[in-house]
Order: sequence, then structure tokens, then C-alpha cells
Amino acid sequence: MNPEVLLSRIRVVLCRPSHPGNIGAAARAMKTMGLSRLYMVAPKQFPDPEADTRATGAVDLLAQATVTNTLKEALAGTSFAVALSARQRDLGPELGAPRETVARLLAEAEDGEVALVFGNETVGLSNEEILNCQAAVTIPTNPDFSSLNLGAAVQVLCYECRMTAFAAKPPVIAPGVTPFASPAATHDEVEGLYGHLEAVMTHTGFFNPEQPGRLLPKLRRLFGRIRLERDEVNILRGILASTQVRTGHGRKP
Amino acid sequence: MNPEVLLSRIRVVLCRPSHPGNIGAAARAMKTMGLSRLYMVAPKQFPDPEADTRATGAVDLLAQATVTNTLKEALAGTSFAVALSARQRDLGPELGAPRETVARLLAEAEDGEVALVFGNETVGLSNEEILNCQAAVTIPTNPDFSSLNLGAAVQVLCYECRMTAFAAKPPVIAPGVTPFASPAATHDEVEGLYGHLEAVMTHTGFFNPEQPGRLLPKLRRLFGRIRLERDEVNILRGILASTQVRTGHGRKP
Repeated sequence: MNPEVLLSRIRVVLCRPSHPGNIGAAARAMKTMGLSRLYMVAPKQFPDPEADTRATGAVDLLAQATVTNTLKEALAGTSFAVALSARQRDLGPELGAPRETVARLLAEAEDGEVALVFGNETVGLSNEEILNCQAAVTIPTNPDFSSLNLGAAVQVLCYECRMTAFAAKPPVIAPGVTPFASPAATHDEVEGLYGHLEAVMTHTGFFNPEQPGRLLPKLRRLFGRIRLERDEVNILRGILASTQVRTGHGRKP
Repeated sequence: MNPEVLLSRIRVVLCRPSHPGNIGAAARAMKTMGLSRLYMVAPKQFPDPEADTRATGAVDLLAQATVTNTLKEALAGTSFAVALSARQRDLGPELGAPRETVARLLAEAEDGEVALVFGNETVGLSNEEILNCQAAVTIPTNPDFSSLNLGAAVQVLCYECRMTAFAAKPPVIAPGVTPFASPAATHDEVEGLYGHLEAVMTHTGFFNPEQPGRLLPKLRRLFGRIRLERDEVNILRGILASTQVRTGHGRKP
């Protein structure tokens, strides 16, 4: 299924959020990742100018958001919901890692509406709320400071949703392909550079052909690691040639 | 290497941040993921109560943060830096995906200090700042709304750092990382090479500081693609120095 359609089937449900700024941050986080359906269960303060400010260009998500009194209402029509929780609850679903849980969420989204459910900033989700969800996820944190901001938690999970939804598609950025400004240098052009370097180094005395050591192999190893472009070979040879003019050393053909 | 130690070697560098709230959010994002070393280049307003408020329990990172005037100073002592950028720059390093780029960052952190570099909220990083980094990363976003909040961007990349550092499988050696024969050159050593090159080229007349054109960025792009080793920097500077002896041009300290 089209990744954009999959992402449009994910509701982000904020349960009893206290700070309007976090609601705005959540909306912005969602929209940057291509999610659009924001639900709020009994928000303390909404609508609110602080939410609009933090949402910046995602105020449309706030305007279209659904506000309900209970989580059950917010989940009406969904077939799968994942609860974010910092700890395993006695009766709750087993806590999964973000990547694996999001993969499951997206697989379920192929068949219908799904939800990511976030708790209040201070107390999280209640046990009862967690029992309304079919899965639970935890974001791994520093055990000495696990206080993830609500907007940041929404950002991380929405990011995983986008990464997973688009993973099957050809990558936007082709790995290993450097956008070259000039064509790659040919073998003989690179050899010309090595010859030129050797001539200059011999002339200045930096290289002694009688006792070559490992200098030339080291230079080959260095420049061999880059795929030199033609322009770059020309620049390097230009620099070498300019030092030869100064020293009166004729440039090797 | 111990994942906590690896994470402690990652600097988060915020260049010219405008909003103190974002600085606080970045500190909190870092600490939840086990990162601790915050650097700021010319922040508009810092310290600031709004930064403390948004940092909540991560005010210790703000108190210990390093503030510098330039990105070069913030990168002193690092051997690998990744720039966050929304778009490919003409002469900048190839844009990578977060997961692969973070894997490479952590592989480099095995050998020393590394950095994640973030630009200003509105204008991002300058081309010159990007050329101080050896790699670039982009966070995939909704093409219709790519306005990721600075704190959220820090959160996503720090999250990827933690996930990768603690992944059960042995660290992936990312493509492009050569097992080095000598330790990687630090940022300042590589900067020393650029300064030396510029001095020699200026002396021979190959480079005209009055009409600099794109020569220096092109050289940074060239050497930025290789992870130069300390020995290699010494060899290249040795060659440059030997041409200066011949031309009677005093070597720059």
C-alpha cells in the first residue's frame, strides 16, 4: 500500500495532556512525518494560543483534531492500538521495542485504522487505558533520566512510522552515490598525478628515490580511498605546478 | 566498547540557536538518550530561564555546556563530524540517512571524539559550516511540511545513537569507513593542513585571496571525503613544507 495512505490511517491519541505547548509540538511532529489525525482525550487546556505557537505550520492538525471524553471514544473504529509506556504493567500487553512495534502497527494499518496512544506528561497512561490497547511500546532511555518530553516521544514514534512505511520503497537518497561536480578521473589521470607528485617531492628532496621507503605506497593508499574527480586532479596538479614555477623546476610532461 | 562510553564521546553542537527553549529541549533530548556533551556556537540568548524550564532535569547539561564563537572551536579535538542538513549542498558531503550515518558516527566514536552538528532554526547550517564536517545526514520528512523543530531533530538523532549503541548485534562497519593504519587526524590537524595548503598556494600565486572563487571549498570537499589519518596529514604537510624550503617561503607555524 502507498506509504502516505498507510500513515494517514494512524491516529495519534494524547490522553489528558496538561500542557498546550506539548499538544502543538505533537501536531508539528506528526505533520513533519506525514501523519495527520490527532485525537485528544480530555485535554486540560485546548484550544490554546501556546498550542498554536508550538505547532507552527501544523495548526491545521489542531483545527481538525478530535476531542473526546474517554479513550474508548478516541479508539472507536480502530482495529489496533499501541500504548506508549515507560514500564511493564502487570496485566498490560508485553512492552515491545519501537521499531518492531511500529512494523506491527503498519502491518495492521494495511487492514484499517490504527492508533498510537500517549499518556499524561506526569502520570502516563492508567492501567485501564493500557488495557484498551492491543500492544505496548517503550522508548529505550537513559535509566538515570528517562523523562522524555511528550512532544519528543510523539516525534520519535512518528519518525519510526515514516521510516518503516517508506522502507520498502526505493530510498530517497541513493547510498554510496556522491553527487560529483565533475566526471571521475581516469586511471591514467590519477597516475599522472602520482608521477607529478613524485617529481616534485624528488626535486624538493622530500622523497629520495634511492631510499624510497613506504612514502609512495602511502600516498597511493591515501588518494586511492577517494574516487578523485578530473577537476580535483587538475587542481592538485595545478598546485604542484605552481610550486615548480617558483623553484624553477621544469614540469614533468 | 561500552555503549555508555561511546555515547559520552558524541558532542551535540548547536550553531547559532535563536530560541533558548530549543536549547533546553535539546539538552533534555540528549540526556534521555544518554548523551551529555552540549556545545553551542554563538547562541542568541544563553543562559536563559526558558532554556532551564524546557531542560527540566537536564539543567546539568546546560551548566556544563561549552559556548564558542565558531564551529571550528566547537569541533576542536574531534575526528569526525556529521552535519544535519535538509538538502544536498553543491560542495558538501553526500547526504546520508539517519540510521546508516549514525552507525558510521558510532564506528568513528570507537577511536575518539565525534560530533553531531545542527544549524540555526531558520537558516540551518551555512555552506562553510557544512564543509567543516566529514558527513551529512538528513531526516526524511513529509515533503509538504519538512519543518522539523530543532529539539525534535536532536531527539531523533540522539534516539538513533542510543538504539545503535545498544543494538545487540556487533557494530556495523559502515561503508566508507576504512580500517586505519594510523589514528584518524583530529579536526584541528586537518584544519592545520588546510591552512598550510592555503599559505603555500597563496605564496606561489595559485590562490588569490582577493579572488578566492571556489578553490578552498573544493579542496575541503576533496579531503573531507577521505578520513585522513594523522600520518597522512603529516606527509602532506611535509611535502608542502619541502616546497617552501625551496622557495624560501617561511613555513606557517
